[in-house]
Amino acid sequence: MRTPRHDEKGSTVTASPRLRTGIATVCLSGMLDDKLDAAAAAGFDGVEIFENDLIVSNLSPEEIRRRCADLGLTIDLYQPFRDYEALPGALHRDALRRACHKLELMRRLGADTLLVCSTLSPHAIDDDDLAAEHLHTLAERAAGHGMRIAYEALAWGRHVNTWEHAWDIVQRADHPALGLCLDSFHVLSKNPAPTGIADIAAGKLFFLQLADAPVLDMDVLQWSRHHRLFPGQGAFDLPGFVKQVLAAGYTGPLSLEVFNDVFRQSDPRPAAADAMRSLLALRESLTVQPDHMASAVPPASPPLRGFSFAEVTVDDESGPQLTAALTALGFTHIGQHCTKPVQLWQQDSSNVLLNWAPSHPSTSNNAKIAAVAVESDVPQDSAHRAQALLAPRLHRRRDHAEADLNAVAAPDGTHIFFCGSGPGTDWRTDFTPTGQAADRTLLRHIDHIALAQPFDRFTESTLFYSALLGLDPLDEIEYAAPFGLVHSRTVADSSGRVRIALHGAVLRRGDWAPTVRDPEHIAFSTDALFSVARALRDRGAPVLAITDNYYDDLDARFALAPDLLSQMRDLNVLYDRDEHGELFHLYTEILGSQMFFEVLQRVNGYNGYGAANAPVRMAAHRQAREQQAGSDRLR
Amino acid sequence: MRTPRHDEKGSTVTASPRLRTGIATVCLSGMLDDKLDAAAAAGFDGVEIFENDLIVSNLSPEEIRRRCADLGLTIDLYQPFRDYEALPGALHRDALRRACHKLELMRRLGADTLLVCSTLSPHAIDDDDLAAEHLHTLAERAAGHGMRIAYEALAWGRHVNTWEHAWDIVQRADHPALGLCLDSFHVLSKNPAPTGIADIAAGKLFFLQLADAPVLDMDVLQWSRHHRLFPGQGAFDLPGFVKQVLAAGYTGPLSLEVFNDVFRQSDPRPAAADAMRSLLALRESLTVQPDHMASAVPPASPPLRGFSFAEVTVDDESGPQLTAALTALGFTHIGQHCTKPVQLWQQDSSNVLLNWAPSHPSTSNNAKIAAVAVESDVPQDSAHRAQALLAPRLHRRRDHAEADLNAVAAPDGTHIFFCGSGPGTDWRTDFTPTGQAADRTLLRHIDHIALAQPFDRFTESTLFYSALLGLDPLDEIEYAAPFGLVHSRTVADSSGRVRIALHGAVLRRGDWAPTVRDPEHIAFSTDALFSVARALRDRGAPVLAITDNYYDDLDARFALAPDLLSQMRDLNVLYDRDEHGELFHLYTEILGSQMFFEVLQRVNGYNGYGAANAPVRMAAHRQAREQQAGSDRLR
Repeated sequence: MRTPRHDEKGSTVTASPRLRTGIATVCLSGMLDDKLDAAAAAGFDGVEIFENDLIVSNLSPEEIRRRCADLGLTIDLYQPFRDYEALPGALHRDALRRACHKLELMRRLGADTLLVCSTLSPHAIDDDDLAAEHLHTLAERAAGHGMRIAYEALAWGRHVNTWEHAWDIVQRADHPALGLCLDSFHVLSKNPAPTGIADIAAGKLFFLQLADAPVLDMDVLQWSRHHRLFPGQGAFDLPGFVKQVLAAGYTGPLSLEVFNDVFRQSDPRPAAADAMRSLLALRESLTVQPDHMASAVPPASPPLRGFSFAEVTVDDESGPQLTAALTALGFTHIGQHCTKPVQLWQQDSSNVLLNWAPSHPSTSNNAKIAAVAVESDVPQDSAHRAQALLAPRLHRRRDHAEADLNAVAAPDGTHIFFCGSGPGTDWRTDFTPTGQAADRTLLRHIDHIALAQPFDRFTESTLFYSALLGLDPLDEIEYAAPFGLVHSRTVADSSGRVRIALHGAVLRRGDWAPTVRDPEHIAFSTDALFSVARALRDRGAPVLAITDNYYDDLDARFALAPDLLSQMRDLNVLYDRDEHGELFHLYTEILGSQMFFEVLQRVNGYNGYGAANAPVRMAAHRQAREQQAGSDRLR
Repeated sequence: MRTPRHDEKGSTVTASPRLRTGIATVCLSGMLDDKLDAAAAAGFDGVEIFENDLIVSNLSPEEIRRRCADLGLTIDLYQPFRDYEALPGALHRDALRRACHKLELMRRLGADTLLVCSTLSPHAIDDDDLAAEHLHTLAERAAGHGMRIAYEALAWGRHVNTWEHAWDIVQRADHPALGLCLDSFHVLSKNPAPTGIADIAAGKLFFLQLADAPVLDMDVLQWSRHHRLFPGQGAFDLPGFVKQVLAAGYTGPLSLEVFNDVFRQSDPRPAAADAMRSLLALRESLTVQPDHMASAVPPASPPLRGFSFAEVTVDDESGPQLTAALTALGFTHIGQHCTKPVQLWQQDSSNVLLNWAPSHPSTSNNAKIAAVAVESDVPQDSAHRAQALLAPRLHRRRDHAEADLNAVAAPDGTHIFFCGSGPGTDWRTDFTPTGQAADRTLLRHIDHIALAQPFDRFTESTLFYSALLGLDPLDEIEYAAPFGLVHSRTVADSSGRVRIALHGAVLRRGDWAPTVRDPEHIAFSTDALFSVARALRDRGAPVLAITDNYYDDLDARFALAPDLLSQMRDLNVLYDRDEHGELFHLYTEILGSQMFFEVLQRVNGYNGYGAANAPVRMAAHRQAREQQAGSDRLR
């Protein structure tokens, strides 16, 4: 067996070292140096060098070795080596020659573990003893260089495609330099609840690769090559899997190997941070913490009481639209920020800040949700947690008298504030009262905030918001909207106090699209939607007109009482139903360039977001815009 | 049975009317009026109104009816009606109520055929007689309004999921207003070579929906909803299928129903033209032409003799790079266009035109493949074919003395010229000789031209180039490049005279990408690659440097003779092998902003394009750029 090695970061390895973190270079986009820089910046301890990344690099193996050392990265694995074992005669000799080439490369690179995948070769013989013999031969060669071989069953391997089968062959081969590599995808794609992993002999589990994935009913190779995700982003039980692996005495790195079409083309720096965040959240989810992990776990998320406020940036063109709409919705301008051009608009427990920014030609008529603030029981803990989870901290200009709001930036650019009621965290103290009192007649609280996600950051955002705020991601849904498919995933706490709906185009749009970015919105709750709808009509609120065709279809589908349907049609109220109850809701027109408001009433615990009506709303927004443009032209 | 109706376009229907064309609105992106406009502009005769498109539209059914009539479109089908048949008791009454609502809607819309899909309801009873009874009831109601019901088996239907089963139920129901709808996807996804369709009773096949698809091993519902293609773009035998349907006496429209993630978000006008082009090509591929089709078939593609030339647009910054590179590659500036700033560079049978355009700040250092010219035996026929296949004709400014080159625009913006050797088609006559003679020592002909495709036009481009030029599309391949997955599909004639390689990002890129558009290139053939490589080195040609790691890996993989490998390493020659033979090739550095040249030698009939080396080339281009930028900074 291999002797214990020294921790490259300087301290001597103890009986129970901190579990190290790793990432395969194939997870990230770019050239090898881009990938190594990104992995180091995200705080990974080591990397798996993916062969193709090395082949296309103009860094020599020695230069890569030095680059990694300079960045504080260990090279934990060289991979993959394919189609080696159980080949007949001359083909076996060719494969061994090829392997020896790679061992020599690894010597130059300073890598000491080679991943051997179970063969796909049509020439391979289905003979476990022959496979074991060949692996023994290779392990003997590797041992001669102080290296070792980690054998992995691909889920689509020709003869060996389960970890149990690979483990059996490793035992048959019985060489100290030969062990097993487990990859969570290959294991869990075949069997979501494996047993027996904890019984693998101590020290024979040489390497652990982690990947999550959505449940997809498709060819497993295509599923693996295109749809893997970082832990916590898919449907696999990674905590349960890792617990079994740790029970087997594994002390190597938790190393990510994720093939994903989107990550492959995304900026590697945020992708690496997303990857590291997934490992930190995974560690936290191991409810029985191994001693050597406790220090690495971020502080738990304190309970959240709801949204403190949502901040909307406006300019001279959009600002009047927003103030008119808020006024018509029953909001009052009750406070003015003591140093900034920010207005506080309030109604019952809903707070909206309007931040008046100078108009800029490139963002004319701008109105966007710039910040979301949550009310935390312990704002400092929320902020520490966010930082431990690699959220970029925002340094906001502020006067000494102002609240020290802890703020971080989300992947979509939204600022997240952690507010409280104590000194230094109570944002309300920054506002000078205007003397007007807030109304309480129409709307209650912010039910949810819907944020548009850039195409290439959707998955990252889901993990970011849920991990930072301690929210549960609900199932992802997908719907056909007029200008393309949209996916949407909501993160929410179990009590429904903080709900954030993330949505975005499934594919990034081509040249045809009415807006570059989908509009975002803030949804307010009410206990009496129809009264509100009538009040809004009386106040001239810019309620979005819904087509008659929608109500004809509602009638066909739900057979609602004619009176009710007629009121809904009259007031532009939309309807949905789930297994709990009913939703009545309405929307405003688009305000500024890309936001709107929603008012909703959840009846009998309806728990969704009216996604069935989203295409209707999108179409109505487009049509309202066209009518507006038409009447502007006539004027 | 339904009585023969009048052709909406005025003429009386005869025994053998021209088969009409149709498209389901769900195929296209946008609002219903965008879709109808696009379908009409592409020349479709009719549409299927997809229910969701109507529901979100603010046009009333009567307005939609008028809009279609104004555009010359018939409404051939209203669809889909789901979960109707074989429900028990009260659920059946609800479903019938719902159906009656839709019949009333169809009356307003002026649609006379309703598509009923086989049920997915978990409440449905597996009882064919009950299903037949319910369909009979619905057909009776429909007949009362002069309408009819087309019953379709969804491939994932709960109890009915084959066309044979649906046909059995239609026969049991035995109502003149009830017939069958066949959808090629639902039929061919279950059985790629169905039999028996020709035996369906004359007149009982009410509707035909056409879709192609790639072969994918995945859940059939997801396959259908996201990956359908227009005929000729996938792997299904649509000609064989349609022949059977016509043999059954079908005279209704050939109507497209394609759910595709990309088309759903693409500009509907080119998408509709793409759709119509697919139907025109499908008609052509019905080798036994029904009488009523012959007139609609475009003229056959005349034989092509190769590339006449490739035209590259350059500016003051990129032009000198191109001329230096062409000179080093052995080209000579042998002609100057008589009226335009266009140079003819020639070597053996390779011709490259350099079109000097003024520099423009937004496209500084521009160098792009602007036009591709093919040598046709009958250029006028090639041009007529292109126009019959809806290729936008280009009107080029020209003097009377110049050749009347027929040119069209491809979806990627490339101009396609059809040249010949006769008067008016011989492009050479437009050039005044410079007095210099072309060399023949190094390069032979243009082997292939590789064109970058916009994300949302890749599939359309494949059909466009192959249909217009009479080329065969080879299998699509996909490879992992440093900045994301790339797909590539080549269209070529069987003799390899005209080969065009189309490539593009699988997903449109996010913010991280070194170039907005992938570079394009022209590949020249040689019979003696190593001599050429040495000559290029001697002439100082900007040959792309390939990393040593690549050659180490070649050595491991292929065990090439050490001498050969050493020469390749020395001369930056890349290598590939297929079942026929071997490829030796080299690339230049990027010239201008986004193009380069390739020189290749095919040994023993190698038939590929060295795709395995594409990531190596992309990485090397990136590294060469960085080194250039670095040395520019030092200077």
